[in-house]
Amino acid sequence: MHIDTLFTPRSVAIVGADNDPSKVGYALMKNALAGGTREVYPVTISEASVLDHVAYPSVNAIPGDVDLVIIAVRADVVPTILRQSAEKGIHTAVVISAGFKEAGEEGAKLEEEMVAVAKEHGITLLGPNCLGVMNTHAEWNGSFAVKAPRKGSIGFISQSGALGTALLDWADREGVGFSKFVSLGNEAQLTETELLEYLRDDEETTAVLLYVEQVRDGARFLELAKQVTSKKPLIVLRAGRSARGSAAVASHTGSLAPADAVFEAALRQVGAIPVDSLRALYSITKLLELGITTPQQTIAIVTNGGGPSVNTADLIETSRSLSLATFNDNTKDALRAVLPPMAAVGNPIDVIGDAGPDRYDGVLSVLETLDDIDAIIALVTPQMMTDPAGIARTVVAHRGAKPILPVFMGGDAVSPGVHALVEAGMVSFDSPSDVVEALDILAAGAQRPSVETPQHETPDDTVALYPFDEMRTLLDDYGVHLEGAFAQTKEDLASAVKKLGDGPYAMKAMGPQLVHKTDLKAVTVNVADVTALETAWDTMTKDIKRHLPDAVIEGMLVQTMAQGVECIVGMKRDPVFGPVIVFGLGGIFVEILKDAAMRIAPVSEDEALEQIREIQGIPLLSGARGSEPMDLRALAHIVSAIAHLALDYPDIAEIDLNPVFATPSGAHVVDARMVRAQ
Amino acid sequence: MHIDTLFTPRSVAIVGADNDPSKVGYALMKNALAGGTREVYPVTISEASVLDHVAYPSVNAIPGDVDLVIIAVRADVVPTILRQSAEKGIHTAVVISAGFKEAGEEGAKLEEEMVAVAKEHGITLLGPNCLGVMNTHAEWNGSFAVKAPRKGSIGFISQSGALGTALLDWADREGVGFSKFVSLGNEAQLTETELLEYLRDDEETTAVLLYVEQVRDGARFLELAKQVTSKKPLIVLRAGRSARGSAAVASHTGSLAPADAVFEAALRQVGAIPVDSLRALYSITKLLELGITTPQQTIAIVTNGGGPSVNTADLIETSRSLSLATFNDNTKDALRAVLPPMAAVGNPIDVIGDAGPDRYDGVLSVLETLDDIDAIIALVTPQMMTDPAGIARTVVAHRGAKPILPVFMGGDAVSPGVHALVEAGMVSFDSPSDVVEALDILAAGAQRPSVETPQHETPDDTVALYPFDEMRTLLDDYGVHLEGAFAQTKEDLASAVKKLGDGPYAMKAMGPQLVHKTDLKAVTVNVADVTALETAWDTMTKDIKRHLPDAVIEGMLVQTMAQGVECIVGMKRDPVFGPVIVFGLGGIFVEILKDAAMRIAPVSEDEALEQIREIQGIPLLSGARGSEPMDLRALAHIVSAIAHLALDYPDIAEIDLNPVFATPSGAHVVDARMVRAQ
Repeated sequence: MHIDTLFTPRSVAIVGADNDPSKVGYALMKNALAGGTREVYPVTISEASVLDHVAYPSVNAIPGDVDLVIIAVRADVVPTILRQSAEKGIHTAVVISAGFKEAGEEGAKLEEEMVAVAKEHGITLLGPNCLGVMNTHAEWNGSFAVKAPRKGSIGFISQSGALGTALLDWADREGVGFSKFVSLGNEAQLTETELLEYLRDDEETTAVLLYVEQVRDGARFLELAKQVTSKKPLIVLRAGRSARGSAAVASHTGSLAPADAVFEAALRQVGAIPVDSLRALYSITKLLELGITTPQQTIAIVTNGGGPSVNTADLIETSRSLSLATFNDNTKDALRAVLPPMAAVGNPIDVIGDAGPDRYDGVLSVLETLDDIDAIIALVTPQMMTDPAGIARTVVAHRGAKPILPVFMGGDAVSPGVHALVEAGMVSFDSPSDVVEALDILAAGAQRPSVETPQHETPDDTVALYPFDEMRTLLDDYGVHLEGAFAQTKEDLASAVKKLGDGPYAMKAMGPQLVHKTDLKAVTVNVADVTALETAWDTMTKDIKRHLPDAVIEGMLVQTMAQGVECIVGMKRDPVFGPVIVFGLGGIFVEILKDAAMRIAPVSEDEALEQIREIQGIPLLSGARGSEPMDLRALAHIVSAIAHLALDYPDIAEIDLNPVFATPSGAHVVDARMVRAQ
Repeated sequence: MHIDTLFTPRSVAIVGADNDPSKVGYALMKNALAGGTREVYPVTISEASVLDHVAYPSVNAIPGDVDLVIIAVRADVVPTILRQSAEKGIHTAVVISAGFKEAGEEGAKLEEEMVAVAKEHGITLLGPNCLGVMNTHAEWNGSFAVKAPRKGSIGFISQSGALGTALLDWADREGVGFSKFVSLGNEAQLTETELLEYLRDDEETTAVLLYVEQVRDGARFLELAKQVTSKKPLIVLRAGRSARGSAAVASHTGSLAPADAVFEAALRQVGAIPVDSLRALYSITKLLELGITTPQQTIAIVTNGGGPSVNTADLIETSRSLSLATFNDNTKDALRAVLPPMAAVGNPIDVIGDAGPDRYDGVLSVLETLDDIDAIIALVTPQMMTDPAGIARTVVAHRGAKPILPVFMGGDAVSPGVHALVEAGMVSFDSPSDVVEALDILAAGAQRPSVETPQHETPDDTVALYPFDEMRTLLDDYGVHLEGAFAQTKEDLASAVKKLGDGPYAMKAMGPQLVHKTDLKAVTVNVADVTALETAWDTMTKDIKRHLPDAVIEGMLVQTMAQGVECIVGMKRDPVFGPVIVFGLGGIFVEILKDAAMRIAPVSEDEALEQIREIQGIPLLSGARGSEPMDLRALAHIVSAIAHLALDYPDIAEIDLNPVFATPSGAHVVDARMVRAQ
């Protein structure tokens, strides 16, 4: 891999260079020449020179060494160019050209050919169908983007070129800079994982943004994401969330874990920060530009206007993870000393409408000495006496002591202030909601996922269940014991009941097609004794056969009536991330309210405990209103065991342990089913 | 009331006019002279003329008629100026001056004096401590704001001057116009209700924005809000949401209905649209500027870039109330006819990165003919060949046929497009999330409130409950029957049981201090017969006395064990809006999950049915998974009755009917308590 060459090439050949400003080959040349001291060689057969640089008819004709080739010619010519580049000793290529996999079957073939050539010659290949690559620290713009970003410390990997250009253009206006930018295009060879690996170790990059539409190797992705987040924040905007929610599911677990929620849970599990909207992504880049890469939770507000600060306080108080700082008497006295009598020294601190820079200066001087404040939101509204530029300079002067988040609200009237901030390498947020949302996402990043289940799941009745005996043995092997005695025939009922002791009993029919037991009347509860069980056996068999004439009934599971808090433990195999382990409360309440928490396997017992504690209804298990706490350790054991089992048996598509009754001394698995992968 | 004069004065006196640009009196003069043809008279004792207008020493010295006086002098002089104005025959005043109620006790007295003068002389008074008033349609700026807004059709009432100036300044840059603006200040006389009444009938105003920190007369406010929403949308940004959530509560109902949630529910009940953040308010003003004042739910997307449009589609699919339009084959063929083969004709329609205005033109021409599309989001990202101004002109040319929502993403590269839109009276959204959020809020406005209960309620144990007999009689009078037989003494148990029929029974102790019955062990369930009840009587009495030695036990309520779905019906008296009627599911699940819906009394049975159907757990009542539906009409009867009762008895502070068991044929009230107002 020669990824480093993408970002710091010493000499570059641009194949398809052009003097026509409407051509990609022109933009590539212009951008490549815009900074730095490297050699840039245009390659084209149609012109003698491009942008005053001697053009060569092929890469082989270039006199000097070349370590990077950027290719922007017709797709069908690309493999040839790659071969020539290999001959020239070039090991790194950016293929800008479109017309490959995204263009249909023929293009897909061409892409395969191109990848084969790259592989044969050991060429590291970015693209095709991409915007290119940038490294502001080396003044290197290897893209045809309309504008190079400001120098900064955010690394940005995008699976969409258009999203990349839009964000870079926006960021330039707003004063947000980047260290590196990569547009991945079709990912014929390089994918987000290699770039994550690179940016993980890149010292010029202090935070990583990723726009991702597709992850191919979930395990590898998560491994790298985890490595990145151990060093710097990783912000991920995922696309196709709605599409991912609509896959058919065959189990309760499936419906509790739609694919996008799995992705979100997986991201949080490795410490990455998922965001849903471009506005949130925009706002977070501003935090990062201000050097804020770790959670800042206790917030002070200084303002020259009441309304906006009240709204800011509201948003903080109703956020998931932020709170307003409280000031002690010393602090209030110190604030009073720098403010007129009419000012309010609570939080928000209202320096009043006629405040000049001096009052902001006084307040910031007091606040920056306080240990129990994480960050300061500096609100400025354009009032008659307001000097936005002066206040901006004051904010800039106080930079460093404590994170200051400027919110200069308005338009033209405050723009001198915003410009002063941007010139000094800071930024301003348009509205308090933007900064509060960004702070909350950063602080809540590693917290519990919100499971929003889409309504359009299609239950699948045609799945194949594991035979009961096989399933029970398998669960036993992993230390998960399904309660009750199994009767293969009606005659076995007497010995089953003897094993169980006194009733009343519950009885469930088992069989590969008996997916929805309640609907099929395949469950009877509160049965008093053997005689009643035998009668129930006949009734249930008849009922099931009426609904499903060719149903196979393997036998009946007889149990004593269980008590405790009804839970569900399940597994769903995600095509990208593998086994997803779900824990939730059981029963009809939860089918409706969808209260569940997820982890990607493996899950240790300690991790499982953490997972269990994430559900909204945890007070029911941990001892609400003085009730006895349930045995969470026993539940965690089951969760962890199911994760191991799922990793060991890839042919199991889904597992439902439902219900599992949690009691103060143990957890009892009362029903289970496993769906075989098809 | 002379509110009309505030907005269309024929001649204005500005008391405190000044030539010093740092003074409010200068800004007022300058703004007043900036447009229109009315007479503007400066009044000041310190200068001969202000801004080349002859200055008068007092309003009485002005030669012509004056219908509006704007006062910006020291607070203690204001009553005198008002008296002089009355002598001059002026009936309308705007008091800009600060130093009244907001400045402490002395200021409050001054404010009272001022209001008394106004009342005595029949003067309509806006302020004090306000920014002023504007009417763009009359070129009238009666404020000291730094800038007058563009002419538009949004009316804006603000309880914060700072928020007003910030929004107006922002709106000017973004191309959003206003019809009227009013800063309410201290609301010594005029409040939001009089202004709502005025804007309700104002033909130049097609939508009303309200920033509100405090509502004084809840009933009047709701009445007027309802009148406004019957004619035009009313968008309300409420402040102090977090503060309102922290009041002490003495009942389950109280904890299910924090004051801010009540305000939100009240707004939705009258069809107003609550918003929480300034970003959302910003975005909604852009919708309004585009003429969109009614829900637009089925959305088509046209884009020149993949990533941003996928994110847009995600946001729409995961929104509360929007959906993506689907195109039939005819539409797809029509789109193919105007687009190159590589373009995608699904929704989003991807016209590809090199698209010029012609492709947008072609697509818009097709989309605007389709009946099953409500609105079109036109996404533009700055790519190499993109002509943002040209695309903007195309969008402008298609205006009118169907709402088009431009999202020109980026910064300088797209700004020619944004400018072209603004010049033509349109706007652009910065990001897809902004427009989707705004559309969703507009469409979901009248839908169910989200009840987010703050965690910091303080249960109050010192409340006084109604005596049992009185409560039961009162409920009976309204057709709500509390189940069971009441035994005042242990000796009454036998006859109570006779009334009830076979057991087992539940027994509850009643008494004014028995607020938390479970904690006090004041409930026993599953009691077999009279003998067991008598034993339980003694045990319970002992237990209660141990916890609360001076507890008064009025007797015991004996009931047969109830079955059904546990619900709660309650009332909490809100200090602003009056009786709030709460319906929710009961039991510990709901204590934790807080699933409830609210209405302000009165509530008809039909309205109550609607309210009941709003709860998240409604499938439990309406027949989930083939179970029998519960008698919702019986529940609605109870909800409506409690609303009537609460209106008739203002000394009842809170009511809890908990649990109420819903069954397929009726609803059974199993426990009740009423808290007396203190």
